[in-house]
Amino acid sequence: MSRLVRFGVSLESGLLEQFDRLIAKRGYTSRSEALRDLIRQELVHEEWEEDREVAGTVTFLYDHHTRGLSARLTDIQHDHQDLIISTQHIHLDHHTCLEIVAVRGRASDVLKLANALRSVKGVRHGSLSMSSTGKTLL
Amino acid sequence: MSRLVRFGVSLESGLLEQFDRLIAKRGYTSRSEALRDLIRQELVHEEWEEDREVAGTVTFLYDHHTRGLSARLTDIQHDHQDLIISTQHIHLDHHTCLEIVAVRGRASDVLKLANALRSVKGVRHGSLSMSSTGKTLL
Amino acid sequence: MSRLVRFGVSLESGLLEQFDRLIAKRGYTSRSEALRDLIRQELVHEEWEEDREVAGTVTFLYDHHTRGLSARLTDIQHDHQDLIISTQHIHLDHHTCLEIVAVRGRASDVLKLANALRSVKGVRHGSLSMSSTGKTLL
Amino acid sequence: MSRLVRFGVSLESGLLEQFDRLIAKRGYTSRSEALRDLIRQELVHEEWEEDREVAGTVTFLYDHHTRGLSARLTDIQHDHQDLIISTQHIHLDHHTCLEIVAVRGRASDVLKLANALRSVKGVRHGSLSMSSTGKTLL
Repeated sequence: MSRLVRFGVSLESGLLEQFDRLIAKRGYTSRSEALRDLIRQELVHEEWEEDREVAGTVTFLYDHHTRGLSARLTDIQHDHQDLIISTQHIHLDHHTCLEIVAVRGRASDVLKLANALRSVKGVRHGSLSMSSTGKTLL
Repeated sequence: MSRLVRFGVSLESGLLEQFDRLIAKRGYTSRSEALRDLIRQELVHEEWEEDREVAGTVTFLYDHHTRGLSARLTDIQHDHQDLIISTQHIHLDHHTCLEIVAVRGRASDVLKLANALRSVKGVRHGSLSMSSTGKTLL
Repeated sequence: MSRLVRFGVSLESGLLEQFDRLIAKRGYTSRSEALRDLIRQELVHEEWEEDREVAGTVTFLYDHHTRGLSARLTDIQHDHQDLIISTQHIHLDHHTCLEIVAVRGRASDVLKLANALRSVKGVRHGSLSMSSTGKTLL
Repeated sequence: MSRLVRFGVSLESGLLEQFDRLIAKRGYTSRSEALRDLIRQELVHEEWEEDREVAGTVTFLYDHHTRGLSARLTDIQHDHQDLIISTQHIHLDHHTCLEIVAVRGRASDVLKLANALRSVKGVRHGSLSMSSTGKTLL
C-alpha cells in the first residue's frame, strides 16, 4: 500500500458548500474520501479509453428454455477463457436467467466479448460494467 | 413465451447498408435480432428512468487488508437483503478483491445501495450495470 | 463571486501520481482547478437527476429539403419559447443542417423538448448536452 | 437522397406492444421512423468510436468577469479554426456566459479541443454533444 500524502486545495466557498451537501447525501464521511472516488472514477475511464488491462462484468439476460442457447453461451465463454475469471448464474424466474461474467483483459477484447455475448440470438439484454484491476487506483 | 409478429419497415437504402455493415461487424445473424436488441436496450433504459422493478449488478473493488472493510461491506449487504440476490467474490491479486452483487428491486433503491457501497472508505471503485428482470423484454 | 477557501486533502501517493499525470495530459495547471472541475461535473449531474433548473443544448441534424420539416421544427420551438434561449443554424453541406438550440428550464421539460424535436420525421439525429445555469457552481 | 427499401421484421408480440407504447410516448408517428432513429443513434456512436469525421457541439459555462478568460477562450478557438464552424454566446445572467461551439472534424481532435476548453481556469463546466456530419445517416 502506498503512503498518504497531504496537500492543500482551494475552492470557492459556495462550491464547497454544495460539495459538502452532495457528499453528505451520498454517505461519505470525509472530503478526502469523496475526492479520491472522483479521481479514481476518472482514472478508470482513462484505462478503458486507452485500451489498457481492465476488469469488469458482463451481465446478460436470457431464457434458458430457448433451444441450444445455454450451450452456445457456454461455448463463447470457453473460447474466451483467457478473459473470463468466473461466472455467476441467477434464476430470476421460471424462464429468465441473469448471467454475470467477471472479466479481465485488454479493454478492446472485453468489449468484443461483451458484443459477442449480447448479439447471440435469444439473449435479451447485455450490459457491461467498466471497472479496473485496481493497480493504478492505489 | 409470446408469439412472433411480422411487420414491414421502410428504410433509406444508404442507411440500411450502414446498418447491415454494423450488425455484421457485431456478429448478428439477422436484422430482426439486431433490431430487437436496440428496442430492448431502449426499454431497459426506460425501466430505470421510470423507477420500475429492475435487475442489475453492482461491482466494486477493494483491498481486503483494509481493517474492518470486509465486515462493513457485508453489513451493508445484509441491511439490503431484500435487494440482493447473490454475491460473487473474486481475488484479483494478493490485495485486490472484485465483488459483484446481483441485485433486484426498485431502480431508486438499487441506486441508493450502489452509492452506499461505493462511498465506504476503502472501496476504490464502484460501478453499476443496469439490466432488467426481463418481464417487459419478451 | 464567492471567496476561496483552503482545506487539506490526503491521498495515497500512487493515486496522486496517476492524477497528476492525467491532469497534465488534459492541460490543467493546478490540482485545485482539476478537482473543482470534477466536483462541478458531479453537481451538474445532480441538478439533472433532481429535476432542477438547468441549461443545456439540444443539437439535431436534418435535411432542409424535406418538405415541411423546417416549418415543423420552428413550430415546436415556438411552442416551447419559455425553454428556448436562442438557436444557431449551420449548413453542414448542400443537404444537411445542424441546428443547435440553447435551452434553460426544468430538466424534465428540457428532456421532453429534446425528445419532441428528435422524434420529428426527417430529423436524423438528436442529442442533448447537459449543462447548468451556473448558480450552484460558484 | 437515397430511395426507401422495405423489409420485414419479426418481433415477439409482447416486445412489440412495449415498443409501441414507448414510441407513442415519445411522439413518433410510425415504427419505421422510431427504428430509423435507433439505428442512426447506433451509427453515430460508431463514428465517434472509430474516430471518423464527426460533428457536434462543445458547450461551456464561464464568468466573463474573470480577468483574461474571454481572451484565453477566444485564443484557443482561433488555434482550432479548422475544427470550429461557429460560436453562439449566451448571457445567462449578469455573470454567467454559456458558449456553444459548433464543431466538425476527426472525433479525437474534437475531444482534444473539448478538453482544452474545459480545463481553462475559470471555465466552470464543459460538455460535449456527439452528433454527425450526416453523411452516413441517409
